[in-house]
Amino acid sequence: MRELTLIGIGTGNPDHVTFEAAKAIAAADTILIPRKGDKKSDLADLRHQIIAKVAPDSAPKIIEFDIPARRANGDYLEAVDLWHDAIAQGWKAAAQDAPCVALLVWGDPSLYDSTLRIATRLDPMPDIKVVAGITTLQALTAAHAIPVNDIGAPFVVTTGRQLRDHGWPKGADSAIFMLDGHCAFQTLPLEDFDIWWGAYLGMENQVIRSGPLQEVCADILATRAAARAAHGWCMDAYLLRKRR
Amino acid sequence: MRELTLIGIGTGNPDHVTFEAAKAIAAADTILIPRKGDKKSDLADLRHQIIAKVAPDSAPKIIEFDIPARRANGDYLEAVDLWHDAIAQGWKAAAQDAPCVALLVWGDPSLYDSTLRIATRLDPMPDIKVVAGITTLQALTAAHAIPVNDIGAPFVVTTGRQLRDHGWPKGADSAIFMLDGHCAFQTLPLEDFDIWWGAYLGMENQVIRSGPLQEVCADILATRAAARAAHGWCMDAYLLRKRR
Repeated sequence: MRELTLIGIGTGNPDHVTFEAAKAIAAADTILIPRKGDKKSDLADLRHQIIAKVAPDSAPKIIEFDIPARRANGDYLEAVDLWHDAIAQGWKAAAQDAPCVALLVWGDPSLYDSTLRIATRLDPMPDIKVVAGITTLQALTAAHAIPVNDIGAPFVVTTGRQLRDHGWPKGADSAIFMLDGHCAFQTLPLEDFDIWWGAYLGMENQVIRSGPLQEVCADILATRAAARAAHGWCMDAYLLRKRR
Repeated sequence: MRELTLIGIGTGNPDHVTFEAAKAIAAADTILIPRKGDKKSDLADLRHQIIAKVAPDSAPKIIEFDIPARRANGDYLEAVDLWHDAIAQGWKAAAQDAPCVALLVWGDPSLYDSTLRIATRLDPMPDIKVVAGITTLQALTAAHAIPVNDIGAPFVVTTGRQLRDHGWPKGADSAIFMLDGHCAFQTLPLEDFDIWWGAYLGMENQVIRSGPLQEVCADILATRAAARAAHGWCMDAYLLRKRR
């Protein structure tokens, strides 16, 4: 593997794909597609759809590979470390001797995604290129037609785990939360925040809610649970802003 | 004006445009393009190029309008407030009675951009739609092929002014700085940070630098000054991470 291109493809709307991403997909000679089990198979299908749509003539070789399981017990960061090594080995085996390999990355490769970190474990390390993609952050704010920041003000991007373990992030009145399977916003003083929430952002079954957290919290919990039961999975994100 | 679509077009690379943005451009009947004087005229030209490229057949009506000057003295937020009112009036006058108007927004309409705030001042308020675009944040991390966050860790997005006035943002070891014409990173203890800097991100004349801040600070200052002198303007951004 001489060259590895990580291509951000947006959050599930095939129209999130940029012209740059479409060109990179068409230019790849091999594309690796992860299999993560049945639950998220619509996401794997979506990758196939995008390739077929944007590279109908170039027909890059598509190789599926299984993502190994992550050790569930013991130290979290150590488990992630071992898991990333195993995935890198999986890429190498799947790609065989293809010189120019591409991976389609959900959202953007820079944001809460491990693909870049895994890529640096390849030995010898290929030339790594990144094609930027629409992130959940933009898909969320676009769906609500809102700015993420107050005028000239900072904001924090973080995870549900951080909110649960450390409370409201210091130093900002606005924060975006991702990777939150447990609706950590419930742990805040509800009366102090407004929320803009969305799931399946950019996709056909996108659902959004917004309002004073105290008023919409229960509805979001119920909506999320019902959607998760219906689809088998739920990817969501939310912006919280301190009320003035 | 019945419908107003704010279309994120990325950071200056026409290939940053998404299929969704291309469709929205082609579907608009009138597109407003701001004129900001000669300095940034390559940015106005770029908007024309993008429209011609992605909507060669639909030929939406293109109307240029002058952005009024912002009051330079007095209270900053008050000056911004008056300025936004004046711009909203300018849009209305320029759009005349077109029902479906679009504006092409540099980067993404959610991020350090006033277009959404200006749009809410229109009276009567049209139906506002947002099409997400690639931001400087992703263009920067893609150019450097780096993640923005440490594993599961938060990061802050903020401005050069905030760094200069309030120091390093609380609660995170990684932060992205935008809108910094004064290279506020100079004010930090240089030995404590690594920097990933970029200007004209995504464009042909993109320039990037990275390394320990102490080692690359002077080079970035000189590179930025030379680029600004050559082009008449410089848009840049940087990621700083605390060294461990």
